[in-house]
Formats: sequence, C-alpha cells, structure tokens
Amino acid sequence: MAKAPQNAISPTRVDDYPEWYQQVIKAADLAENSPVRGCMVIKPWGYQLWENMQRALDDMFKATGHQNAYFPLFIPMSFLEKEAEHVEGFAKECAVVTHHRLEPKPGGGLQPAGELEEPLIVRPTSETIIGATYAKWVQSYRDLPILINQWANVVRWEMRTRMFLRTAEFLWQEGHTVHATAQEAIEETERMIDVYADFAENWMAMPVTIGSKTPDERFPGAVDTLTIEAMMQDRKALQAGTSHFLGQNFSKAQEIRFQDTQGDLQYAWTTSWGVSTRLIGALIMTHSDDDGFVLPPRLAPTHVVILPIYRDEETRAAVLQYVHTLRDELKAQTYAGVPIRVEIDDRDVRGGEKKWHHVKRGVPIRIEVGPKDIDSQSMFVGRRDQAKSFGLPRSGATQEIANMLADIQQNLFDRAKQLRSDYTRVITNEKDFRDFFTPKNESNPEIHGGFAICHFADHEVLQPLLKELKVTIRCIPRDNNDQPGTCFFTGKPAAKHAIFAKSY
Amino acid sequence: MAKAPQNAISPTRVDDYPEWYQQVIKAADLAENSPVRGCMVIKPWGYQLWENMQRALDDMFKATGHQNAYFPLFIPMSFLEKEAEHVEGFAKECAVVTHHRLEPKPGGGLQPAGELEEPLIVRPTSETIIGATYAKWVQSYRDLPILINQWANVVRWEMRTRMFLRTAEFLWQEGHTVHATAQEAIEETERMIDVYADFAENWMAMPVTIGSKTPDERFPGAVDTLTIEAMMQDRKALQAGTSHFLGQNFSKAQEIRFQDTQGDLQYAWTTSWGVSTRLIGALIMTHSDDDGFVLPPRLAPTHVVILPIYRDEETRAAVLQYVHTLRDELKAQTYAGVPIRVEIDDRDVRGGEKKWHHVKRGVPIRIEVGPKDIDSQSMFVGRRDQAKSFGLPRSGATQEIANMLADIQQNLFDRAKQLRSDYTRVITNEKDFRDFFTPKNESNPEIHGGFAICHFADHEVLQPLLKELKVTIRCIPRDNNDQPGTCFFTGKPAAKHAIFAKSY
Repeated sequence: MAKAPQNAISPTRVDDYPEWYQQVIKAADLAENSPVRGCMVIKPWGYQLWENMQRALDDMFKATGHQNAYFPLFIPMSFLEKEAEHVEGFAKECAVVTHHRLEPKPGGGLQPAGELEEPLIVRPTSETIIGATYAKWVQSYRDLPILINQWANVVRWEMRTRMFLRTAEFLWQEGHTVHATAQEAIEETERMIDVYADFAENWMAMPVTIGSKTPDERFPGAVDTLTIEAMMQDRKALQAGTSHFLGQNFSKAQEIRFQDTQGDLQYAWTTSWGVSTRLIGALIMTHSDDDGFVLPPRLAPTHVVILPIYRDEETRAAVLQYVHTLRDELKAQTYAGVPIRVEIDDRDVRGGEKKWHHVKRGVPIRIEVGPKDIDSQSMFVGRRDQAKSFGLPRSGATQEIANMLADIQQNLFDRAKQLRSDYTRVITNEKDFRDFFTPKNESNPEIHGGFAICHFADHEVLQPLLKELKVTIRCIPRDNNDQPGTCFFTGKPAAKHAIFAKSY
Repeated sequence: MAKAPQNAISPTRVDDYPEWYQQVIKAADLAENSPVRGCMVIKPWGYQLWENMQRALDDMFKATGHQNAYFPLFIPMSFLEKEAEHVEGFAKECAVVTHHRLEPKPGGGLQPAGELEEPLIVRPTSETIIGATYAKWVQSYRDLPILINQWANVVRWEMRTRMFLRTAEFLWQEGHTVHATAQEAIEETERMIDVYADFAENWMAMPVTIGSKTPDERFPGAVDTLTIEAMMQDRKALQAGTSHFLGQNFSKAQEIRFQDTQGDLQYAWTTSWGVSTRLIGALIMTHSDDDGFVLPPRLAPTHVVILPIYRDEETRAAVLQYVHTLRDELKAQTYAGVPIRVEIDDRDVRGGEKKWHHVKRGVPIRIEVGPKDIDSQSMFVGRRDQAKSFGLPRSGATQEIANMLADIQQNLFDRAKQLRSDYTRVITNEKDFRDFFTPKNESNPEIHGGFAICHFADHEVLQPLLKELKVTIRCIPRDNNDQPGTCFFTGKPAAKHAIFAKSY
C-alpha cells in the first residue's frame, strides 16, 4: 500500500513549524487547551505516554536510592520571602490564594469570602516548603542524606503558553536532597543529570548534551545548575531537565542544620532536580514528521496495532482468528524487557481512516491482515519511521517484530543525532556567529543555523550581542571540554566552549 | 523472645482512641502536619503504601475499561455556579485564587498583585471542569461511553482536620464517565462501587457494606450515591469510597448532549466515583493495635524484614551470608502474584530498638537470625498479627513465609469482620436504639454500641433523634435487604433496613 502523497498534518514543518506542532498534538489526540487560561487537558493517549515516562523515571530514581513522598500544594507567602533570588525568580508569576470560601453576591452570583490572614502561593516549585520540613527532620549527621522525590502538579502564571512546553499548570517530579558535605551534594547533582540524560537518550531516543548553565541562566537560588539540552527539528534548543546544586543557600534561609560527627552544628548542603510534561513537547518536536506523532517504541503505549481487513462475514471470522492468534503470540514476546504491547483495531471505520488514525498517533508498527495474507501466511507491515510498507512472512514474525521495534528505537535516535550534527558548527568569530543566527530563507524567517559551539571568556560581555540575535548560552558542556581556546567575541583566552542557540 | 509487657503506643486504644490514632501515625512514620494549616506531609513509608494502593486500584480501573487523563487544577468560579446543589455543597470551603503575582509591599515583604478578572477555585472535585470538556467531546452516540479516571490532589477548606481522615488537601482518584442511557450509567455506578468493595476486602482486609445513601447524605448534585461503609475499632463507621449516579443533572448544567441513533439530541447520563488517602486512615483504624501500625500483607511496602544479630566480626560474616541467601530465596518466592518484598535491616542500632521500629511500622513478618540459628539451621519469626514469636526451620522456610503472609491477610480480615459482627445489632424500637448509642463507660465516653440495623420508614422524621444522638444513616444496604419490616421509630411499615452509626 503506497503512502498517500499528501501529508496528514497541515501545515508541514517547513511551512509553519509552531502551527505544525499544535496540529500534531491535535491529530495525535495528546492534549487540548482547557477553559482555564494557560491550563491544558492531557487526554488519555498523552497521559498514557506520561505514565510510561513516569514509570521509567521512577524506577531509575528508586534504583539510585530515592523514595517518594508528598508535600503540600500551598506555600505560605512568607516562606517565599526567605531566599532573595528565589522570590525574585518566582513571585512574578504565581497563583495566589487569598480566600477560603465563596458567598452569594448581592444581585446574584458568587464572590470570594473568608480572607486568609496570610496569602498562600500555589507551589511553583517546592524548595521552600520542603526545606521547612527538612529543617525539622535533620538533627544529626545520622539523619543524612535525605533522598526524596515528589510527583506533583505545579503552577507558574506564564503569560504566553504553549501546550506541554509552557503551561500555567504542569505535571512534574521534583527531587529534593540534603547532604552532610558539599562533595556529596555535588555528586548527587551529577548523578541525577546523568539519570536524565540516560532517560532522554535511551528511552526518548533524544540525544542531549550535559552541561552547566551560566550564572544568568541558573535556577533562582542555585550555586550551579546542570542541564540536558536537546536540538529540536527547527534547530532550536530545548532544556529538557535540570539538576541544581543549591549549596547552603536554602539550608541557611531555612535553618537546615545538623550536628556533625564532632558535635559541631553545620548547615547542610542541598540539591533539587526535575523534569516535567515538557518532555512530551520535546518528544513531539524531536521525532514527529508531517504525518503526525512518532513514538519511540520504549515509551509507546501501544507498540503494535493490528488492523484486520475483511469484506464479509465469511472472511471476517478467518481474519479475526488469524489476528487474535498473532496478537497472543506477540504479547508473549518481549521487547526491551516487557511484553509487546499490541492492540487489534476492529472498529467499524473505513480502512484508510483507521490506518491514518494510528499513523497520526505515532504507533511504531502497524500490521494489516486481509484474506490474501492468510492464504500466503503473511502480513503487511508499516513502520512509523519509514515511508514504505512491506510484506512479512507469518513464520518468525513475532521475533522479527521485536527486532523491528529495537531497530526503530535506534533509528530514531540516530536520525535525531544526525540532525543535531548537521546543524551544529564550531564558530570562532563574531561575523560567522551573526551569520549563523541570521535566517536566510525569507519565506521561513525562523530557520537559522542551529547550535554554535564557541569558546567564550565572559558571559556578561556577550549579553548585548546575544540579546540582539535572540540567542542564549544553553550550557557549558561538561564532557570533552578541556581544550582552551580563544573567545569568538573578545579574542581573549577562554578555558571552555559553550553551546549557543535560540531556544524554547 | 518474649514480647515486652509495655505497649509501644501511648495512649492505648481504650485509653484515648483519637490520640492513639495520631500516635500510631507518628510511630509508623506515615505522615505529619505541615506548616500549612490543614495540609499534611505524607512521608516515604506512608507514600509507599499509597503507591501500592494506587497500583492495585489503577489495575482494576483499567481492567474495567477505564483510561487515565488529567484535567486542570483550577475551576473558574462561574463553573461552580451552574449546578445549584453542587455550589451549595462546595462553595463554603474552597481555596480561592484571586491574584496571579506578588509584588513588594511598601515597608517590606510581599503582597498579592495582578487581580484576576474571574477568581479561580482550587478543585474540591472536578465534575464541573471535566463536564465542560466532555461537552466538547460528546457529539454523537458513537462518542459514548467516555470512561476516564484522574489521579489528582484536591482541596476542601475543612475547619477541623485530622491526618488522612480529613485534610484541606488530599490525594485521590476521581472517575468521570458519560453514557447514552440511564441504565448504562447505573451499571457503571454499581460496577465501580463493587471494585471499591473488592479492593477494601481483598487488599485492605477491611470488610465493608455496600449501600445507598439517603437523600440528605448524597453527593451534592447526585441522583444516587453508593457507598462502602466500614467499622473502625472504636465502633464508628467510616465512609471509605463512593460512586455517584448523577443522572442528567450535570449534563443539563453543562450541556453534555449527543445525537442518538435516531438523530435526536439527548442529554447524556453521567457518573463519578472516588477514593482518597482517607483509605490510609481507614487502614490504620481497622487493623492497628497498641504496638502501632499493622499492614495487610498485600499492601505492605515490605513483606518481610530480616534482622541479623551478631556480636563480633567473626559471627557477623556468617550471619550476613546466611541472611543474604535467605533474602535472595525469599525474593524468588511469590506471594499473591508478586515476588516477596524483603529487606535486611543491618543498621547499627540496638536490637530491641530495631525490632520495635518495624513492629510500629506494621511490617507483616519479622525474621531474626543470630549465630545459634545458623547452628540449628533455623530462624526466629514474629508475625505482626500475633503476640508470640516462634522458631522456623530453614528448610522449606520460603514457602512457609509465603503461606504465612496469606494467613496474616486472611486473619486480619477475619478479625475485622468479627469485630464488626460483635458490635452490630438488629434494633426494633426507639428505647433500644437510644440505649445502643448511649455510652456506658464513664471513663471512655466515646465507646457506644456500634452499628444498629433498623428498618425505617422515612429518613426525615428521624432527623431530630439522629441529631440528638449524633448518629447518621450510613447506608441502606444493597444486598440481602428485601425483607420488609416495621420502622423502629414510627412503627410504620418499612421496605428496607439501614445501618445507623456514629461516624468519621
């Protein structure tokens, strides 16, 4: 079955990337805007994906010694005031609860009543409320380390929202740990950014670079912020996860102190780290194409969909029997350590429409079975990562499908890595830098060079140039970054290079 | 090893039941009050228990055809106004967001700024916001049924809070379904209360009665509320889960309409159902004793804890080798379909303290191994549901431990059922009814008769009596309730009996 010449998603990526993104979400039935400004509804297909991400991450957190707990949604306003940089970073966009009931309004309707003595903030992140609790838990070095994660919703009153990438409410996990020494806390910060990179590359099939943020891009209150940065298909960077070494900033603001082995009272060292439903946005923009969503098999809610094709009752029975047996065999086969997740779509819907339904939703493998396939003991297979479909003999099919899933996972990763490599350039002077970030294509003014790798001496000196070009320093890569060089802007000696890019 | 004569929890259940409850939570490290009024911190041991409950329930929801999704935390105030009973039920205690940022206050500190045009309510339950979304999703009978569940946090501004039982913020799941016919919606309502009863009895080992609420006890806006009611050890009833048939009340308020097979426009029929972290409170009050928490094995984060006992380096090596082998064998053994969850507690803590640590946390089985046990190829075993400990031969121990876990699960259920039976009485006249609910013991004024089974003709006529005695109609049992009788209060003919009780 040849692929239809027309694309399922309109506009295409080249025509209008931001609008293409919205249309993929709609066509894949992942989410939609809600009646509440800036908040989204995550639909079942999108939520199943999030559940798979959660499960994988949660296993990794537990394997590295963390436990889950749950802390309050609300933060007293006074808590936010304690850490100066933190309040600066979050006070400008937060939901403030000021009343605790509604009462009838004269003339009809309702109005807030029961004003609170102290307003409460809906958590934008939980360092302050969790820190206040840790201050009670930590007395002695014997109480350390504390290694806790929380799965929760958080709210940041963003003015310009985009589904998954930037929403007023989003779902995330936030790890919060306390340690006796700076060294242990730094190791934890590194460990968790490595976990995120592992998840991004081996589950999401999304290549990432691990690095440190420059001071202006750090988490408010952090001493060091580690990040994983990925390239989207429009060559922009997306920050996909961060891990913060908070030093003693929060422990001093919140009095998290412990008696060390000598009996001396010390401030503890803390970290925090998080990823969110933003990862779903990253997944869409890394792999999807002009026919819709493309799911990496390890995270796909459905690995394989089987579409039975028949015209009458007679062939129906034979086809259904064939596909049920096939399904049961596939379910008994494992891929990446789990039974293959397979569904039969036997809805009373036209064949073409049904096929495109699953293409748009990103199901990795589509199997079509009609009466002729039974005669020839075979099936027709479409891989979501390839345009062409092909016949597959029934014999040995289950192992072949498992291999194919592994191949798709690898292929998506390789493809994304190739894209990143194609649009990454080492740049050594200002002229090339300006040129790299200046879009050439008039019909598509968003498309620019991609990632620029440049040595730089001082991030502050660069600010006017970066502002002008709408470029930021995404990170100073941690690995393979020991070669000194010359600052592309000032010509001064520079110890490290950084990735410069436009970003989400 | 004989059990210490003194109890680990003070006060005991008989001395002061409400305070005993708080002390069990503290001793078991389940949760604690937070700095935010009425909100609790769920600590890792409590949260692991909740995760196990979630996993079991989620599997049951999915097995009955439901999918998870996620809807916004906030509800516009105007949404609440649409359903008259609903607003009456929830407007009096809700968190109201009125501003979207904080700004510096003249003279220091912060103050709310950026007033919202329309205040937002933090969801106390999501019928209105989910219904508004369903109204867009439902066009035709082909779109039905919609079978969706959400795991979420909700907020009700309770004035008198108690950990797990009644907190301002709590965690729960809320199912929201839409159907083409009343019959289908009623079947769904029944199906889900059956799922809850199954979970309560077979996972929590907590016997429950399924029944309907009388009109005054219904969910605000429901046509019928089904409930599962359990008896706590102080003989009070606890409503552990509810499933609501909402009729067309919400679909009319929110315009959830569909074209039926004839092409006519009809209002849909909806249901909602939920259980919450309150179940942890129910679990504590059903099984725990004066030594602390008692966990039913199927929900226990740890099934078996092994305590190695040694005095010097020489015996240490031998004991550790013995317990590691034992642990690995136990992990390879299944109980109730999952590998036995076993931990070795090798912390440097005195033996007695370590033992009581696990007793108070409710771990079902405790195994102690010292050098003498190696010599005799055996171990010392303590069951949390029994006072005495006993020796167990090493040979065949893993199967024996698995059997013991099943036995503990059954024993806890039987014990709770016996208690309920002991304190349930059929009552046929007002004098006995008054007597039953009048505490006899002056030193313990809370302890009354328990559950009264009475035929009744009209719930409204009973209100003054019930109010006087602080008793409510818990439910009209669904099963074995076809025998007509005489109203205990009015002497009139009565079709059904109900359970009357004091309650949480």
